[in-house]
Amino acid sequence: MPLPEHNLYPPFNVLRLSHVEFVVTDLAASRAFYVDTLGLQVTHEDENEIYLRAMEERGHHCIILQKGEKAQANVLGFKVYDEPELDKAESYFQSKGRPTEWIERPFQGRTLRTSDCHGIPLEFYFKMDRLEPIHQKYKLYNGVKPLRIDHFNVFSQNVDESVAFYADFGFRTTEYTEDEESKRLWAAWMHRKGGVHDMAFTNGLGPRLHHTAFWVPNPLNIIDLLDLMSTTGYVANIERGPGRHGISNAFFLYILDPDGHRIEIYCSDYQTVDPDLEPIKWDLKDPQRQTLWGAAAPRSWFEHGSTFANVEPVMSDLNATPIIAP
Amino acid sequence: MPLPEHNLYPPFNVLRLSHVEFVVTDLAASRAFYVDTLGLQVTHEDENEIYLRAMEERGHHCIILQKGEKAQANVLGFKVYDEPELDKAESYFQSKGRPTEWIERPFQGRTLRTSDCHGIPLEFYFKMDRLEPIHQKYKLYNGVKPLRIDHFNVFSQNVDESVAFYADFGFRTTEYTEDEESKRLWAAWMHRKGGVHDMAFTNGLGPRLHHTAFWVPNPLNIIDLLDLMSTTGYVANIERGPGRHGISNAFFLYILDPDGHRIEIYCSDYQTVDPDLEPIKWDLKDPQRQTLWGAAAPRSWFEHGSTFANVEPVMSDLNATPIIAP
Amino acid sequence: MPLPEHNLYPPFNVLRLSHVEFVVTDLAASRAFYVDTLGLQVTHEDENEIYLRAMEERGHHCIILQKGEKAQANVLGFKVYDEPELDKAESYFQSKGRPTEWIERPFQGRTLRTSDCHGIPLEFYFKMDRLEPIHQKYKLYNGVKPLRIDHFNVFSQNVDESVAFYADFGFRTTEYTEDEESKRLWAAWMHRKGGVHDMAFTNGLGPRLHHTAFWVPNPLNIIDLLDLMSTTGYVANIERGPGRHGISNAFFLYILDPDGHRIEIYCSDYQTVDPDLEPIKWDLKDPQRQTLWGAAAPRSWFEHGSTFANVEPVMSDLNATPIIAP
Amino acid sequence: MPLPEHNLYPPFNVLRLSHVEFVVTDLAASRAFYVDTLGLQVTHEDENEIYLRAMEERGHHCIILQKGEKAQANVLGFKVYDEPELDKAESYFQSKGRPTEWIERPFQGRTLRTSDCHGIPLEFYFKMDRLEPIHQKYKLYNGVKPLRIDHFNVFSQNVDESVAFYADFGFRTTEYTEDEESKRLWAAWMHRKGGVHDMAFTNGLGPRLHHTAFWVPNPLNIIDLLDLMSTTGYVANIERGPGRHGISNAFFLYILDPDGHRIEIYCSDYQTVDPDLEPIKWDLKDPQRQTLWGAAAPRSWFEHGSTFANVEPVMSDLNATPIIAP
Repeated sequence: MPLPEHNLYPPFNVLRLSHVEFVVTDLAASRAFYVDTLGLQVTHEDENEIYLRAMEERGHHCIILQKGEKAQANVLGFKVYDEPELDKAESYFQSKGRPTEWIERPFQGRTLRTSDCHGIPLEFYFKMDRLEPIHQKYKLYNGVKPLRIDHFNVFSQNVDESVAFYADFGFRTTEYTEDEESKRLWAAWMHRKGGVHDMAFTNGLGPRLHHTAFWVPNPLNIIDLLDLMSTTGYVANIERGPGRHGISNAFFLYILDPDGHRIEIYCSDYQTVDPDLEPIKWDLKDPQRQTLWGAAAPRSWFEHGSTFANVEPVMSDLNATPIIAP
Repeated sequence: MPLPEHNLYPPFNVLRLSHVEFVVTDLAASRAFYVDTLGLQVTHEDENEIYLRAMEERGHHCIILQKGEKAQANVLGFKVYDEPELDKAESYFQSKGRPTEWIERPFQGRTLRTSDCHGIPLEFYFKMDRLEPIHQKYKLYNGVKPLRIDHFNVFSQNVDESVAFYADFGFRTTEYTEDEESKRLWAAWMHRKGGVHDMAFTNGLGPRLHHTAFWVPNPLNIIDLLDLMSTTGYVANIERGPGRHGISNAFFLYILDPDGHRIEIYCSDYQTVDPDLEPIKWDLKDPQRQTLWGAAAPRSWFEHGSTFANVEPVMSDLNATPIIAP
Repeated sequence: MPLPEHNLYPPFNVLRLSHVEFVVTDLAASRAFYVDTLGLQVTHEDENEIYLRAMEERGHHCIILQKGEKAQANVLGFKVYDEPELDKAESYFQSKGRPTEWIERPFQGRTLRTSDCHGIPLEFYFKMDRLEPIHQKYKLYNGVKPLRIDHFNVFSQNVDESVAFYADFGFRTTEYTEDEESKRLWAAWMHRKGGVHDMAFTNGLGPRLHHTAFWVPNPLNIIDLLDLMSTTGYVANIERGPGRHGISNAFFLYILDPDGHRIEIYCSDYQTVDPDLEPIKWDLKDPQRQTLWGAAAPRSWFEHGSTFANVEPVMSDLNATPIIAP
Repeated sequence: MPLPEHNLYPPFNVLRLSHVEFVVTDLAASRAFYVDTLGLQVTHEDENEIYLRAMEERGHHCIILQKGEKAQANVLGFKVYDEPELDKAESYFQSKGRPTEWIERPFQGRTLRTSDCHGIPLEFYFKMDRLEPIHQKYKLYNGVKPLRIDHFNVFSQNVDESVAFYADFGFRTTEYTEDEESKRLWAAWMHRKGGVHDMAFTNGLGPRLHHTAFWVPNPLNIIDLLDLMSTTGYVANIERGPGRHGISNAFFLYILDPDGHRIEIYCSDYQTVDPDLEPIKWDLKDPQRQTLWGAAAPRSWFEHGSTFANVEPVMSDLNATPIIAP
């Protein structure tokens, strides 16, 4: 199956990924992790929820932590260009047979709820509460100095289907891993906002959220976070890295929050605004696609993920094939 | 005069700034500067011209150095989304009374030549020759490790007019300096590609090109360049910096090429893809807007620029007013 | 006059500079500067004094802030190898006609008070209270992440005399500035601990303390401090930098505390433990000796300093000569 | 057995480690590694040997590569304070029953050959050819920008014996790993020059050279080297890292040269010139002593080393005990 072409004239204009809502089992433990350790800023909190933003964001939130019994990801949020685009989105998803619903969301107003081809809960909005800039309030910078949410990465039971679904409303593939023989996709990175990705898909037990990534200024901030986490009781929450990805060329670190939600700290990928930017193909047998420097990822990295609310994951048929240096 | 609103539904889709053509008087001296010192990569050269690209660019060129008698900037180049957008651009500029011309440009094909409201020569194209990726060929990285062209900054004899002109075809103002009393704009930063700017306008003897900026990975690359330039005969070419701009929050260095064309080395501004991102207003009396850390720019920085081919610059009427800590 | 040879077999073993005692007029303002902004750690405080250490120091203090009416530097402190060396120091300074006195100092025990050839108050000790290591308590790192005190720099009314005095008890000159015609020293950098200097002398109205320097991990920490100071009310306290010194090759920043005591933030000089390391001579006319990158230091940097307790400074006769690019 | 006290008044004055001589099987391949990839500077070469120095070294060499049939380490070199100290060294080693021999070494003159308690070939000299400074010739900086040789680490069949041997002539232990029950040393770090170590000993099949370390400016240089090595055919030569050591607190990377000689790239340990600096004890069961961030070292790191010329290694009796998270 060839790589699906992205739609050059998409049916509605998605600007970028925007936010994720996590269910967490201990709000105080999550606050210690996201606020005191990572350095995200609290924009609202009550006894059930904490809303967070990163340092250069002026929208109200990029993470919502919701207290609950069972850790999971409730929804992935995206911002569209303006209100007419939101209405077009409703028509589009209805035309694809996806369920749609309008909700009023605190701090982000009129919001369209739907889901993707495998059931991942998605929401779209056009205007979130705007907050004053804090990117030059350097006294507030802390932890890893998170600047902005960068992307989601999800396990998909069928990456070919996922890529086709998102490409149809304008997500562009920047890099992908293909099985040379079967021409099946094993993973793909797709963007809207001009970086390597807003969404990535990895073959496996899906749909589940593999990780949510935050952009930081430079690799030394990641080293600072490692020093901090390893001396404040979080050494076991460091899962993989630091390293350079072959795919995306980014410098990375993967860590786990107290409930096991995986966070990537990420910097220095490249600009992708040209619609004729050729996607880069990686061979499934090339171990440097995952870590340019050659170090293998731990097994947990291939297996563990956050389930989505009310979605039962299914194992990809590709996992019958042995994964070579995955 | 209020800040002109940018056109949310622009008449044609400009993706980003793309390239500049400089006339230089000594091609070998310019090569030593741009290639051996800055680290740009040669993609074509003959006895009259050198074409250069930065490390993550796959388009053929971001700078053209053309041998000539008199140093100047010939044209500022921009990429549009696709060929239909190029045709819409022609209609648009004609409707604004600007001269238009079609030329065939080596390595970038069908190209529309026109000019802005003050006569700055502009060119638009949709497809440049594509080259293989080199962003992971680390052996080629050299000098300041330039990743991509980031923006142009021009002197304008009337910033209000410049901003109105570019806003009308979709450039969005991210930051600006206003005279609180007269409500006149002294400077403005406008983007298309999702950073702080593709084009900036500074009040003065215009139109002239103030500088062309390149994005680099982090501030340490800029320190490396300073060490290199100051020990290889280029100490007098270091004009201003390093420092942090108040406006844009970027880390910067200004240097002059052998003909006096000013280059900015630039990193770490912020993402601006939201169309509702509120522009940040700076007071003309706030010296930190220029250098957050307080150091004043040298006089040359306010006065020197590259003239554009066949355009006679005119002094802004605002310069009758004394500039307070500009 | 030739550069005085350092004494290869010194009369007593000074290990390194150790601490400085400043009189400050507002203890709370000084605490906000040294603790909340620079990130030094409080090891003792009462209503009259604050003792501070840097992150990798296990000795009790490197700065003592003492509340007083008039800002000045009370004494420069040095650590000797062991107690017998302290007794040899007393004999040595007596033999040179310098006044000596034994005092008992809180947290550093038996202490020898004396002064140098121009009256700078010096104290020597061999054992300071030892504190538990905190260099891996990364939660405590803050501000510029100061690791250790690095050196003192003093104005001297006669640098030739200062260098001869310190060379005689084992300080080694690593770099110096000489007037090619008169063969007079204008400045010299002298070490004991294996870096470029523990003490430096600069020609001028002396003796006065020019600055006290702290070592930090890398230049990005200095950039962080600049961002912090410039957005927390300290922009006027930034005096010079950041930059690379020609002399010492170090990356530097000069800032002023609330009383005008000058602090240098400093990193990346070089190892000097070889006794046959040839001193590097700089020409008075070479502006790159001060800033490799060419930027001039502000006038205040050549003129302002902290007076020492009970010492009246005298202008150097060299200042009759015009200083070329000092 | 308690940690042996270092001799506060040593029988002769060793300044620092100085150089190592490696036998390599392919001089061109070694040159590509050490010169073109790491960035060391050639100071002499002929068809049989290459002499190298790092960027801030003014002594003639820190590595000698000698062409030969069998890869091994010929000798570890140390610099003493002056010629009388060299003569005292001869007497000292003779008094300890070690063989001594005087040789004339190219570029380093009169040299004392001897060996340590387990037969490691050592040489001492007082004056090596001095070369002009190149630390400010930034055009020459390349690869990882190696500044100076920092330390040796050797496998020892009996770390208690090794530490006692070196402590007796003045090496000071800064950190060590002890088996809490048996009070046996498993590893120790000992210095002369004021950093964490000139020599370290690790329990194992000894004596063999575990690695030779080079100091670099900051962690980003190490990241640059990883990017370079992984895209120029050296990905399999990356063995461990990057990471932060618990012991020494340094940022590290371990790589293997074409013959398997292990090189550590190292920065940011701490100053240790105080003779009363308390050694830091680590528990054998604490995995963070090796990597603060928790990642385990690969098996090869515990097993592989370079043999010394004419010395048959012996397995430590401690290896009968299972190594817990070594």
